[in-house]
Amino acid sequence: MTDTALPFDTASLDRLAQVVVRTGLNLQPGQDLVVTASAEALPLVRRVTAEAYKAGAGLVTALLSDEEITRARYRHGHDDTFDRAPSWLYEGMAKAYGNNAARLAIVADNPMALSDMDAGKVARASKANSVAYKPALEKISGFDINWNISAYPGRAWAQLVFPDLDADAAQARLAEAIFAASRVDRDDPAGAWVAHNAELAARRDWLNGQAFHALHFRSSGTDLTVGLGDRHIWMGGASEAKNGVVCNPNIPTEEVFTTPHKDRVDGTVRASKPLAHQGTLIEGIEVRFEAGRIVEAKATRGEEVFLKLIDTDEGARRLGEVALVPYASPISESGVLFYNTLFDENAASHIALGQCYKDCLGGTKGLSDDEVAALGGNSSLIHVDWMIGAPDTDIDGITVAGERVPVFRGGNWA
Amino acid sequence: MTDTALPFDTASLDRLAQVVVRTGLNLQPGQDLVVTASAEALPLVRRVTAEAYKAGAGLVTALLSDEEITRARYRHGHDDTFDRAPSWLYEGMAKAYGNNAARLAIVADNPMALSDMDAGKVARASKANSVAYKPALEKISGFDINWNISAYPGRAWAQLVFPDLDADAAQARLAEAIFAASRVDRDDPAGAWVAHNAELAARRDWLNGQAFHALHFRSSGTDLTVGLGDRHIWMGGASEAKNGVVCNPNIPTEEVFTTPHKDRVDGTVRASKPLAHQGTLIEGIEVRFEAGRIVEAKATRGEEVFLKLIDTDEGARRLGEVALVPYASPISESGVLFYNTLFDENAASHIALGQCYKDCLGGTKGLSDDEVAALGGNSSLIHVDWMIGAPDTDIDGITVAGERVPVFRGGNWA
Ligand SMILES: [Zn+2]
Ligand SMILES: [Zn+2]
Ligand SMILES: [Zn+2]
Ligand SMILES: [Zn+2]
Repeated sequence: MTDTALPFDTASLDRLAQVVVRTGLNLQPGQDLVVTASAEALPLVRRVTAEAYKAGAGLVTALLSDEEITRARYRHGHDDTFDRAPSWLYEGMAKAYGNNAARLAIVADNPMALSDMDAGKVARASKANSVAYKPALEKISGFDINWNISAYPGRAWAQLVFPDLDADAAQARLAEAIFAASRVDRDDPAGAWVAHNAELAARRDWLNGQAFHALHFRSSGTDLTVGLGDRHIWMGGASEAKNGVVCNPNIPTEEVFTTPHKDRVDGTVRASKPLAHQGTLIEGIEVRFEAGRIVEAKATRGEEVFLKLIDTDEGARRLGEVALVPYASPISESGVLFYNTLFDENAASHIALGQCYKDCLGGTKGLSDDEVAALGGNSSLIHVDWMIGAPDTDIDGITVAGERVPVFRGGNWA
Repeated sequence: MTDTALPFDTASLDRLAQVVVRTGLNLQPGQDLVVTASAEALPLVRRVTAEAYKAGAGLVTALLSDEEITRARYRHGHDDTFDRAPSWLYEGMAKAYGNNAARLAIVADNPMALSDMDAGKVARASKANSVAYKPALEKISGFDINWNISAYPGRAWAQLVFPDLDADAAQARLAEAIFAASRVDRDDPAGAWVAHNAELAARRDWLNGQAFHALHFRSSGTDLTVGLGDRHIWMGGASEAKNGVVCNPNIPTEEVFTTPHKDRVDGTVRASKPLAHQGTLIEGIEVRFEAGRIVEAKATRGEEVFLKLIDTDEGARRLGEVALVPYASPISESGVLFYNTLFDENAASHIALGQCYKDCLGGTKGLSDDEVAALGGNSSLIHVDWMIGAPDTDIDGITVAGERVPVFRGGNWA
């Protein structure tokens, strides 16, 4: 295999491909795989394909995208077309997942690639894609199949993250950061993932054993009580898909997370990191909740976008996720803002506005929307994570009896 | 648009994209487009996408392939998988064409890319793909929609064609050859195509007016009479698809062609150029026909492959196409052997073993297989073109009454 001169260590890319196929997907003999990736990520896609076939894959099908092709559409496309999507392709993907193909998405694009395009057209196309992709997405979000999202250091993304470096140096630094966060900078990445999954499972099991009524977050600018959903379940790390395959849907992942109660969130919270949302950087978010609902909100930068976001629908002002990430974790320690949720949400404890995870409620799968709402699960068109964990974050668990149990002290597990 | 330093003139690539969209496809406002191409051809795919949207395209969907991904399958794939194909994707393409999407295939890959892989696996995978792709291919070969095949100068292909040059120089030379053959090395490529299509149409109409019973080819080593199919029709250049769009299915194209009579081919013929077939070069082909059937065959190189080829089925020993190309044409004058039918069959008059073009028979579309055979149309699993036109080629048309009319003299139109 020849790679046109990459400015980073390709042995780590080999290890990343192995981790993606074995730990991330846990691809089974005979199982097909559908890979979506930017063509720029070919050095990783090729390695993943080889690893998949070595693991006994059925057929590996790569669907390669390209930022310039996407941008050409927004630049020159006729206005009529932005409410359409290639449903024949998305229906095909749904069919593949319906036949037990595993799914891999490789993230490499510049998160700001469309920030200079007509926002209205981008929003319309995104909505049309969501509608057409829904049958496929339901197989993924419903965890019918084993799946994974991983990252490749795209050059434009790297230059956004490291604007002071030249293109090669920026790509090399982003590669390093991805390799470290994905635990492939070590001698035994597979072993490191077994240990890491065991630690996440222990945290998760402890939290499930406690069955807290609420969590109380305190740090500079934050005094927030987050009620947890009735019969909530903490998740994190490796999980079993409905096809029986245990996989790691995200690489990296540092969080354990659950569904809060949409009506029992009170107090004030200050974001601890900037939030990159659809090409806009939102900084200095401060919000006050009453009975689950945001009643005051401001930001020092991008406030207009943030206020528009929480006005998307009724559920956009309420929480759909609370997640615990220690300050002492590889991504947090890197100090890098990736402008990408896969990384940034794993740098700090976070909450998400909008849609909840149904699987974190009720202890049984397949609840109806009414049942989810009755347990406190929020619903919305959006799901936007933002970081609230800081070096001075203390978290207490509050039991049904009102007792306090230390969960985090000084940003880390107590 | 930024192209990673291409060693050739990208202004010609801009013009090629325009010719492909306007002359090749004649893409209609609101019409969707499906592009298949190697990821290596992205500099052309991006330009084609922009041109398509400027022309009012609906949605442009690019399906990008990669030689290394394909090779990884043959290297590491489990034996069971070579009889399978991603039918969900091919069915989706058939659906798109069924909804009047136009189709563009960009040729860029090394024709010998799989020559070092297990030939049995390649053949099995190729057959499985053909079966799965059949519903889509029928919309193309049945000319339901406007479609086009064009070329991009891939680096590995260039090095095969120009083995004595370094990679950059080879790619630059192949680019030049493609630009010249595609008539985009001129000031007004669109005008050049109008003129070229008019000339091909005039030749075609003259031949149709003559309604010859047979053609008689004479040159050094060749004395061959090719009977023409009953009610045969000559085609070439721009043609109207069943969706009413006039397009140029091949760029480049120099041929006018029709369907010979499978039982009325007699005499000897010597190939005038080597034939690249599935990774093998076949040189010095000499064949004798009796009553339409090859009864003697030899070659100075690759004879075994050639003999195996004509034993594929009964129809593989008979002709399915005869095509006239003057020696004075851009591809022939370049003297380059491209190892690719899109180019090589447009360098010289040629015949093809195997499957005939049904649309060249009978004057009406949608004939049954029996009707096609009754008119002299051959059928076979193969369709392999080989070049017989030389600088000294004379061709006479023979009328039903037995009169001779000069068609070619000294390699060119009489
Ligand atoms: Zn999260
Ligand atoms: Zn989230
Ligand atoms: Zn031909
Ligand atoms: Zn042909």
